[in-house]
Amino acid sequence: MVKVTVWNEFLHEKQDDEVRNVYPDGIHNALAKGIGTDGFEVRIATLDQPEHGLTEEVLANTDVLIWWGHMGHDQVEEAIVERVHARVMNGMGLIVLHSAHFSKIFKKLMGTGCDLKWREADEKERIWTVNPAHPIAAGIPEYFELEREEMYGEHFDIPAPDELIFVSWFEGGEVFRSGCTFFRGQGKVFYFRPGHETYPTYYNENVLQVIKNGIRWAAPSGAAAPVRGNHQPLEEIKAK
Amino acid sequence: MVKVTVWNEFLHEKQDDEVRNVYPDGIHNALAKGIGTDGFEVRIATLDQPEHGLTEEVLANTDVLIWWGHMGHDQVEEAIVERVHARVMNGMGLIVLHSAHFSKIFKKLMGTGCDLKWREADEKERIWTVNPAHPIAAGIPEYFELEREEMYGEHFDIPAPDELIFVSWFEGGEVFRSGCTFFRGQGKVFYFRPGHETYPTYYNENVLQVIKNGIRWAAPSGAAAPVRGNHQPLEEIKAK
Amino acid sequence: MVKVTVWNEFLHEKQDDEVRNVYPDGIHNALAKGIGTDGFEVRIATLDQPEHGLTEEVLANTDVLIWWGHMGHDQVEEAIVERVHARVMNGMGLIVLHSAHFSKIFKKLMGTGCDLKWREADEKERIWTVNPAHPIAAGIPEYFELEREEMYGEHFDIPAPDELIFVSWFEGGEVFRSGCTFFRGQGKVFYFRPGHETYPTYYNENVLQVIKNGIRWAAPSGAAAPVRGNHQPLEEIKAK
Amino acid sequence: MVKVTVWNEFLHEKQDDEVRNVYPDGIHNALAKGIGTDGFEVRIATLDQPEHGLTEEVLANTDVLIWWGHMGHDQVEEAIVERVHARVMNGMGLIVLHSAHFSKIFKKLMGTGCDLKWREADEKERIWTVNPAHPIAAGIPEYFELEREEMYGEHFDIPAPDELIFVSWFEGGEVFRSGCTFFRGQGKVFYFRPGHETYPTYYNENVLQVIKNGIRWAAPSGAAAPVRGNHQPLEEIKAK
Repeated sequence: MVKVTVWNEFLHEKQDDEVRNVYPDGIHNALAKGIGTDGFEVRIATLDQPEHGLTEEVLANTDVLIWWGHMGHDQVEEAIVERVHARVMNGMGLIVLHSAHFSKIFKKLMGTGCDLKWREADEKERIWTVNPAHPIAAGIPEYFELEREEMYGEHFDIPAPDELIFVSWFEGGEVFRSGCTFFRGQGKVFYFRPGHETYPTYYNENVLQVIKNGIRWAAPSGAAAPVRGNHQPLEEIKAK
Repeated sequence: MVKVTVWNEFLHEKQDDEVRNVYPDGIHNALAKGIGTDGFEVRIATLDQPEHGLTEEVLANTDVLIWWGHMGHDQVEEAIVERVHARVMNGMGLIVLHSAHFSKIFKKLMGTGCDLKWREADEKERIWTVNPAHPIAAGIPEYFELEREEMYGEHFDIPAPDELIFVSWFEGGEVFRSGCTFFRGQGKVFYFRPGHETYPTYYNENVLQVIKNGIRWAAPSGAAAPVRGNHQPLEEIKAK
Repeated sequence: MVKVTVWNEFLHEKQDDEVRNVYPDGIHNALAKGIGTDGFEVRIATLDQPEHGLTEEVLANTDVLIWWGHMGHDQVEEAIVERVHARVMNGMGLIVLHSAHFSKIFKKLMGTGCDLKWREADEKERIWTVNPAHPIAAGIPEYFELEREEMYGEHFDIPAPDELIFVSWFEGGEVFRSGCTFFRGQGKVFYFRPGHETYPTYYNENVLQVIKNGIRWAAPSGAAAPVRGNHQPLEEIKAK
Repeated sequence: MVKVTVWNEFLHEKQDDEVRNVYPDGIHNALAKGIGTDGFEVRIATLDQPEHGLTEEVLANTDVLIWWGHMGHDQVEEAIVERVHARVMNGMGLIVLHSAHFSKIFKKLMGTGCDLKWREADEKERIWTVNPAHPIAAGIPEYFELEREEMYGEHFDIPAPDELIFVSWFEGGEVFRSGCTFFRGQGKVFYFRPGHETYPTYYNENVLQVIKNGIRWAAPSGAAAPVRGNHQPLEEIKAK
């Protein structure tokens, strides 16, 4: 049973009819429902909750945290960002979706600007698998299409991903590294591109399958925590 | 249930008392026993069997193949090497142990010489985890020791691994990239260094844990097989 | 002065008017002229020469070998493939262009099938830089276009490149990892996609700039050759 | 001519006789002298200068910045860290030495804790080349020794390096990824381990050779700056 927390800023859905029509209960609830209960224990958390719903206790009981944010990035408190970061270093998986490329936590983990090109034009996206050996590609066809999505284009200002799994093609002439993994500390991070708030992307079966695969991949490894700092004296070692 | 085939050339054990004392039923049977049955369905195959025990049927029913070889590399038929290679391209996992760095199948998959330094001197090896987020490190302490092993030293002539998980320290002054993963085609390859035939390495709990982790990691991803070759005419695409 | 040898099978140009019209002196001579003499000393070699023009002496005096082949892959003798491979292991750079993805030497160095999707449809290609920090991108705009090229599409069956520099977009809906580097042994390999024989691609300034950058990047590193095999006895080490 | 700025906190040398005896003019001047003038134009900067010597003008005229810090990490102003970070994103190379693994700029660029094991015990270090094809290994033997150094041990809490060039062996039983490169934005980062302030490490010829190689490698690529943000409307693209 992987313990999943789905975090959503939950702002667009309350302010914008177009978005509410697509996600009447919020993106977080659509994701939670889409992930389902087969092997997962899912809870939700949102920006407006105390400590954004990400208390020490919640994080200690989270194996994988999913993050969706956009217009509210600046409202996320630094202390919570630090807490999430520490928990990733400590083994928690993190799945960063779409516009969360600009979230504080993702930028902190990447160390780069994380900017990209974008265009809202009801454009077709094709998502190609470039690493068919990777478990995050399980059950995914060699490519799948989203009829209408926001375009994200290169250069995506991230470190070279440890594993590149998906590359997107857009009608207007752009490409994008859409599925990227990053090992960080004892934790694992998976960035997955699709999911603009005005499109029903998080009802798409392939998108949900990728996210479920990502959760399984990002779950804590269970390796021993490294010991760091001042180390055993050499004399002791030699005395053995 | 992951279907595992343990392949061993099974030569040293028949010719050398020192080795037979350590592995009376052969390295393959020690490995099979060590891997156990909790989630695994294990069979064995050896060089002296017809088609080296690696018939089309056996490979089609193998999720992960483990390979131990040393003095008999040259006796492995090219046709079988090609068959195993094709099956890795097609999704089968491959775990390459110790002296199998010089096996035909590993050299073919790497594209490099795969040579290294070595020394037999009853030397202490310390295996350090350098990627504690990786599932192959699950349950492994930050380092573990093998009191006596053959030394393998850099430069190990392999491509830079896709993921570097373990680095070994040797008493005599050498280091070695001991746990390396490689995505190849639809398949996954894991090279793990320890296991000289004269030492009881394959009874070591940490070594067995790593191998079991490796099997789980290397199991087929289940992604769709890519379609290659001449592709759909552009006219058809545009006509859509 | 980097010593460059441009190798071309030189078959299409002799058999096909359409190709000869584009490259009247052969692709090799167009490339040699395009590379120029500013920092480079360029010679050519072709399939029909003795030893395909790649004698021990020629290779010993080559820092970077450029390879273009297509219909004649099978005519390249194994002994010459082995010789080129040994020289790459020994430090020579290798630049593999377009349809040479299926050359014996590239397949041997990659260890995978190296297959891909393709379509000849006078299609537009856009080549995007995804690593603007890499020296192979020097002087290249964030993207450039080739008005008409053959499409190559994923999945490109190569190991994950050590560095991914360019990704192509094609009009018909495909993407492709078009600029890929691979460290192999003491040598460096750069695969660059463009260059179908019926298009004037090797007159394009950006394409030539990339190839010149690739030559500088792939030139021998000058690191010491590793010593491998049976190593200094531990007793000697301890006696020091 | 590569424009190099050597930055040193310059604190130990003023406070501690043992360090001053080794580096009477400070580590920065020893490094500047060791780098020399053959292809390099070197200036120095220190913590106690206005803006730590890293004004906008200085950074605009710096191709590669070398950073040595230890006890004064906290004294480096955030604004200067942001400025250096922005300049790396913009193409400047950065070479991070030894205890600067804990500098604000390195931690910001890595996104991880950057902690490690350490021990001061006049211990022997052996630095092995694991990527002999890399230009940073130019002129370096397959391994070299430093008779006395501080030990740094794994787990080194960094992202997996884009290229791993050197791995250290220490007498007491530890290993360390000592030479690591990272592409970040348009810039390149090279971390190199040796250089504890009480040892004459920066007079060692191999160490200086590695640093000089690192400077050449880290110099700006000259690729076009990516354009990011809201992109050309699809209508315009289709109208073409």
